[in-house]
Order: sequence, then structure tokens, then C-alpha cells
Amino acid sequence: MDFEGRDIVSIRDYNRVEVEHILEIAELMEPLTKSSSDMLKGKILANIFLEPSTRTRLSFEAAILRLGGSYISISEARVSAIEKGENLVDTIRVMENYVDIIILRHSLEGAARLAAEVAYIPIINAGSGAGEHPTQALLDLYTIKKEYGKIDGLNIAILGDLKYGRTTHSLAYALSLFKTTLYFVSPESLKMRGEVLEDVSKRVKVIETKDVPEIIPKIDVLYVTRMQKERFPDLEVYEKIKGTYRINRNSLRNAKRNMIVMHPLPRIDEIAPEVDQTPNSKYFKQVWYGLVTRMALLSLVLGAIK
Amino acid sequence: MDFEGRDIVSIRDYNRVEVEHILEIAELMEPLTKSSSDMLKGKILANIFLEPSTRTRLSFEAAILRLGGSYISISEARVSAIEKGENLVDTIRVMENYVDIIILRHSLEGAARLAAEVAYIPIINAGSGAGEHPTQALLDLYTIKKEYGKIDGLNIAILGDLKYGRTTHSLAYALSLFKTTLYFVSPESLKMRGEVLEDVSKRVKVIETKDVPEIIPKIDVLYVTRMQKERFPDLEVYEKIKGTYRINRNSLRNAKRNMIVMHPLPRIDEIAPEVDQTPNSKYFKQVWYGLVTRMALLSLVLGAIK
Amino acid sequence: MDFEGRDIVSIRDYNRVEVEHILEIAELMEPLTKSSSDMLKGKILANIFLEPSTRTRLSFEAAILRLGGSYISISEARVSAIEKGENLVDTIRVMENYVDIIILRHSLEGAARLAAEVAYIPIINAGSGAGEHPTQALLDLYTIKKEYGKIDGLNIAILGDLKYGRTTHSLAYALSLFKTTLYFVSPESLKMRGEVLEDVSKRVKVIETKDVPEIIPKIDVLYVTRMQKERFPDLEVYEKIKGTYRINRNSLRNAKRNMIVMHPLPRIDEIAPEVDQTPNSKYFKQVWYGLVTRMALLSLVLGAIK
Repeated sequence: MDFEGRDIVSIRDYNRVEVEHILEIAELMEPLTKSSSDMLKGKILANIFLEPSTRTRLSFEAAILRLGGSYISISEARVSAIEKGENLVDTIRVMENYVDIIILRHSLEGAARLAAEVAYIPIINAGSGAGEHPTQALLDLYTIKKEYGKIDGLNIAILGDLKYGRTTHSLAYALSLFKTTLYFVSPESLKMRGEVLEDVSKRVKVIETKDVPEIIPKIDVLYVTRMQKERFPDLEVYEKIKGTYRINRNSLRNAKRNMIVMHPLPRIDEIAPEVDQTPNSKYFKQVWYGLVTRMALLSLVLGAIK
Repeated sequence: MDFEGRDIVSIRDYNRVEVEHILEIAELMEPLTKSSSDMLKGKILANIFLEPSTRTRLSFEAAILRLGGSYISISEARVSAIEKGENLVDTIRVMENYVDIIILRHSLEGAARLAAEVAYIPIINAGSGAGEHPTQALLDLYTIKKEYGKIDGLNIAILGDLKYGRTTHSLAYALSLFKTTLYFVSPESLKMRGEVLEDVSKRVKVIETKDVPEIIPKIDVLYVTRMQKERFPDLEVYEKIKGTYRINRNSLRNAKRNMIVMHPLPRIDEIAPEVDQTPNSKYFKQVWYGLVTRMALLSLVLGAIK
Repeated sequence: MDFEGRDIVSIRDYNRVEVEHILEIAELMEPLTKSSSDMLKGKILANIFLEPSTRTRLSFEAAILRLGGSYISISEARVSAIEKGENLVDTIRVMENYVDIIILRHSLEGAARLAAEVAYIPIINAGSGAGEHPTQALLDLYTIKKEYGKIDGLNIAILGDLKYGRTTHSLAYALSLFKTTLYFVSPESLKMRGEVLEDVSKRVKVIETKDVPEIIPKIDVLYVTRMQKERFPDLEVYEKIKGTYRINRNSLRNAKRNMIVMHPLPRIDEIAPEVDQTPNSKYFKQVWYGLVTRMALLSLVLGAIK
């Protein structure tokens, strides 16, 4: 399978065989996080983050460094040429002269697709608007695969803001490549986007619900996401809902013994700190799985591995 | 010719033989942008950008990385010791303890000269006030040389804000080292600075004009620059002038077949996007020429090449 | 002596033998600032600077680069996940997945201690609140040792804001490990914190004074620090005091011939520029001693040297 030169814009551009190949390469990367590698020596990555995202930026920076490459970064719109009114297309056309691969974070849906069409070098979408976040979805798959040894056959709940949370959209698509049962758990006003629901339902069984306690005993994976205050016109409604969907030790009482709790981070208070100490919590380990997944993607797209 | 340890503060500090040598070294750098080099392994560059300039900063970062070195960066006045009131001289005296070369961008004319006088290590001026931007001028020369195989004998128009645009000042000086004919094209209120005009006129033929269509058929190079809205006391005047100096496909109708259009970027709307597809447009290729020119300067000044 | 894996949170965690060992290793690092080393090849350092401090951040970045390693940086609270409400503990738990060592600057006392308790990897405190700045204290010791060949037996004055200046607290503790006599020189309202005074007085002779001219002839080291305007409720008082404690050539008239003047930098106007040219001024050389001291700490804590 040859990934060299390919863009990673949407998880929907990849089939199950390709996704499984990426996860296998991620496994090969694990030992390299402790020793140093020269696999990507001489390769330069550019982070273009036109929307704040420290975590994802640092994850890609660490990934290229662990493989012996280096990076340059634009981490804010504010100080860049963008401010002088330059458009994204020009920015991409400039940057591709400097580096071997571009990681793009942008506040608008479609930005990564546009960039990929313009650029001669590979573009990796590190989150565009409320739409897609494919590398997050891949690292989520890798986490599940590592923790369960498989993805097929699992019951997976995605909880939180399913309307605006781009992580949840990419993840739902990614999980629908496997024989999973998906629970979409959210308040009425933040239900999963229609188009995602429709697409995913064609491939796997989907149950929409508002009820957390009811689904807890049934699931193998509880994927928690943030609900952003600013999505609620009525602050009182927000405060009430927030409490309902907050996960604490008590929420896990009826869970399967080895059920895992995931979160794309940062978390605010969707998961109580007391959950961190439980064997169920995997959200910090997920960060490390993210590093190796991104190392795999860089190695593949830059042609260092097949 | 020995450039080791020299500062690059003003294009006026260099004669034609030296400039031609830099352009020859730039040519040697071209293959290194694709493979990796260890020519500057162990060398550290400091970017001190006390005025925003993403493009130039990233260009220097990519240049040192392509040569196997590394960088540290202060990219904003806001978060630095500068804010606590430290002066430039102290900043330079501190930074020279950490690195092998300093790239300085500053909002005041004379800042780079002052830094060069203070520092034991080489200083490269990456733009100081409305005055100088020597590395931009050198990359502009390199672009012309690569596209035409020569600079002597060409008719070159510099268009836009010739009063405040530092790029245009350094470029005019640089071009006057060669047997060129220069057209300075601008509205009355943004005519070329008197001192630059005077100096340059001693060496080459200079024609000042407000008229774009008239000069188009005569020129080999059209160098377009931005006109900044804030330079115009009357916004209506700005809007009218902007239209007059905007380059589109129609503007190029009577141009020589192989006339090239250049721009230091970022552009706003001085050049219509439709020009990008013409064979005349060279402003994105100019970015790549900039990378190799800066690689040449770093190699020379750090003594890795003679 | 094995420093591998240890945190550097407070100078009080280290005894004299350990401190002397660090200073010996610093000496070994000196030649590596000019040539390149691969001692820390493959190691990644994370700067987490949640309070501005360009100088210290760049010093650590240069230190890891000089040893062949690399770095990633969060240099502002503003654009990070912190802004989305993430707490320090979560930030540390995420970052330790990416890197081999964390350098933390935080506005709150105790932050570094908390981070060290949470993290599996070593934490170096690069300044926390008004409390501690241990690497500054170590580089100050190294400067004195290099300039005098010893620390024992010296009379050392620390001048400025001894109440809020974290540098002065760590330095006082560090100096009390040696047979020194300490002069704490400050206006009444900025006298040395009670707890520091008490601890330090148990080990070395301490003289508190407001009078600069009186102590000048007696001392071997004059350590000047900034007095921050915002500490004074009355601006008139500030202006008056500032003048009294400002060091110029005249202040040094009665000093011992080889008395040295130090400053953690940045300075504002506590030391007149005319002092820079005197043989007494060592504050810029101190910056370079800081680089090698930090190289020593990184090598020790990352286990590259014993």
C-alpha cells in the first residue's frame, strides 16, 4: 500500500484496509518514542495553526522530532501574513516552498480540502471548522484497538456535543468502517448532525439517546467530549445539562469491568478528576497513542515506510 | 572571497562582485532543498522579530533546517523582555551568548546597524523600519537572474509604494549594481524617496512615472508591491489609486511575451488571482528562490562555504 | 552521584556536594557551546511557559540544541488549552507523553512542585510565582565560582526587591550553602521575606541594610535586581527610591578593584549603561554561564552524564 504523497483531509477518503494499515504502522512506531530514529532526517514539517490548538500542534511537533525531522510553525493568525489580508491559498503556495509536509488547522470547514487541492506537497488536516479531524479519529481507533485487541464487535458510546464537535463526526465515520454498534448520547439540541447520522447508519447500527445511565452497562467504550457553553442560548439550560452528562465514579457503577473512558482532551469538567484513578480511564494514554499514530501518518505520507 | 563573520545590514555594503558571488552560491544550494545537508550541523540561528513577519521568519527557519542547523525564535515584541523595557542593545548582548547568528526584524530604521555594531556574532537584517531589507533584494536579484540568465540589459519597473516600502529601496539599490533601466511607477504621493532616487540615478537610467499602461510594453520585469491603506489621508483617493495600479490579465495585454511579474508577498489585491495562471507570474517561485538565497547567506556568513 | 530522573524544583532540595557537582559538570559543558555535541541526540525538551520569560525559555532551548536534542514550546497561556480551562495537572499529564523533560514557568508558587509530583518525567522549575528560580541561582553560583575560583569566604550583596523577587530568594538559599557573608540591601518596604531571612541566617552571617554606599567597599559581589514600579502604592516614593538604588560608575568608586556586578536581566535602569564598560560588569557573561549551567542540568537529569 502506498501512502506517499497522499493528503489526509477526511477519514472518509480512506477505506478499512487502509485504516488498518495505518494502525499497524502505528504499532511499529511505539518503540521509537523512547529511542531516537533518523527515519525522517532532513524532512521539515510546517504547522499552520490558524486557530488555537496547543495539544495537536505539539503532538505533530513531537512526532516529527521523534523521527529525526524538524518543524516550523505558524501558531496564530494574529501575527501572520494572514493578518495583512493574505488568503489561505497564497499561504499554502508560499509554505510549500519551505517544507515537505503541511499540517493545517483552520476555523472553516473545507479549508483543508482547498489546501490539499492547491498544494504540491501533502496536507494533513488537523481540524477544520466543525467538520473533520481525521488524525484524532485514527488515534481514537488505535486506542480502542490497543485496549481491546480489536474494534469489531464493540459497543461504543459517543457523548457530548455531537452537533458542533468535529472530533465526534470524524470518529463516527471511522468507527462505521468496523462492525460496531454506536450510541450517540447528547441533549436534544446537540444531536448528531443529520448527514453524519445518515451516512453512518447505512453501515452500522446506531442508537440515539439522551440517557447516560441506561447505556452505561451496555457499552465497551465511553467516548466523552466537551459541551461548549457558548452553544447554549440559555445559560440555565447549559448548567442543568452539564450536570446530567458529567461522568464521575458513580456514573461508572454499572459499567462493564473493563469498559474504557476516552476523551479527546482538553477536558473541563465533563469527567470528574476522581475518574482519573480508575482503571477505566484511558484519556491520558490516548495522548500517547496519538503521538505514535501521528508518527505513523508522517512516515507513510512522507514515503519513509510503506 | 570571505564572507565569514560579516553582517548583512544593507545592500549598500556589498559591491557587484560580492553580490554575484552570493547569487552563485545560491545556485549551489538548490539541490539541498530536496535532500538533507549537514553543512551547518550544530549551528544555531536566532530569529529576533520585533515586528510581525511570518514569511521572512519561516524562510530563515527553513533555510537553517535544510542545512542541518537549528533555530530559536522571538517572534513578537509582546511576550519578550522587550516588554519589560529592555533595550535592543541588551537583547543582542544576551542573545549572542546562545547562538551563532542573529536575524533581526525591527520597526526602526538603523536597528540592524546598531545591533551589528554591538554583536560579536553576525547579524542579518530581515527588515528595519522603512529603510532596508537586503535579503529580499538579493532574492529578487536571484529570481531575475534565474529567469533571464542575466540582470544586465533588462528594463525593470518597480510599482507601488516607493516611499515607505523598504523592499523597493533595497531592490532599487541592488538593481543599480547592474546595467539596468529602472522605471519607478507610483502615485505622486508615494514617489521614490529622494535619497534613493539620487543615489540610484548616478549609476543607472531611472524613469519616474505614474502611468502603468505606458511602461508595460517596454519592460522585462514588473515588480509589484503593496500600497498600504493607512498611508493615505483620504480613503477615497486610496480607492481610486488602488484600482489604477492593480495588475490583472488585461494589464499584461501589451507586455513582452516573457515579461515576468514579481511581488515580495503577501499580496492583497495588487495582483488579481487570474494572473497566477499566466506564465508571467513568478511570485510563488520567487519564494523558493528566497529560500536558496537565504541558505547561501547563512552558509557564507557562518563560514561553511567560501 | 546520580541525578538521572530527578526534578529541579527548589534549590533547597540540593545539598552543597550536589550543587558543587552541578558546577563541575557546567565547566565540562563550556567547550560544547562552540562545537556541536550529540550527547542528548533524540531527547526532546518541552518548555511550558505560562508566564512570559523570553530569556529563560531561549536559554533552555539553546542548551538542549547545543547538546544535539530538540524542543517544543508552549510559550503563552493565551493560545493554549489552558485557555479552554484545562488545569496544570492535565497539561503535565498530556505533555509527558510527548517529551523527555519539562521546563515549567508558572505564575503561582508551588506549581513546579505540583507538576513534579504528577509527572513521570523530570520537571525543571524555571520560575514559579514569587518563590523559586533554582536554575537562576545555580548559574549565579557558577558565575561567582568562575570569576573568583571559589564562593567560600566572599562578601555578597543582594540588592533590590528582596520581597517579591524570586531570583533573590533562590540565590540567598544557594549562597547559604557556602561560607559567605550576605548583605541584603533594599528599601524598608521590600526587605527580604521573613522565612528566607530566618533560614539563611541559621547558616551564614546576614546583614540587612538600606544603605548602598556603606556596603560597597566591603563586598566582592554586588547582585543587582529590578524594583518593579507596580510594587509601590505611591509613585513618588518609587521614583525617589529608584534613584537611591541605581548603580552607576560613581556608585562603584569605593569598590574593591575586582568586585563584580551581576544582574539576572533584563535590566531597566537599575544599572547605568556606563557600568557595562567597566571590568566589574559581569551580567552579560552571566548569561553565557547560564547557558552552560543549564546544559549541565539537562545532561545530568537526562542521564547523559553522572
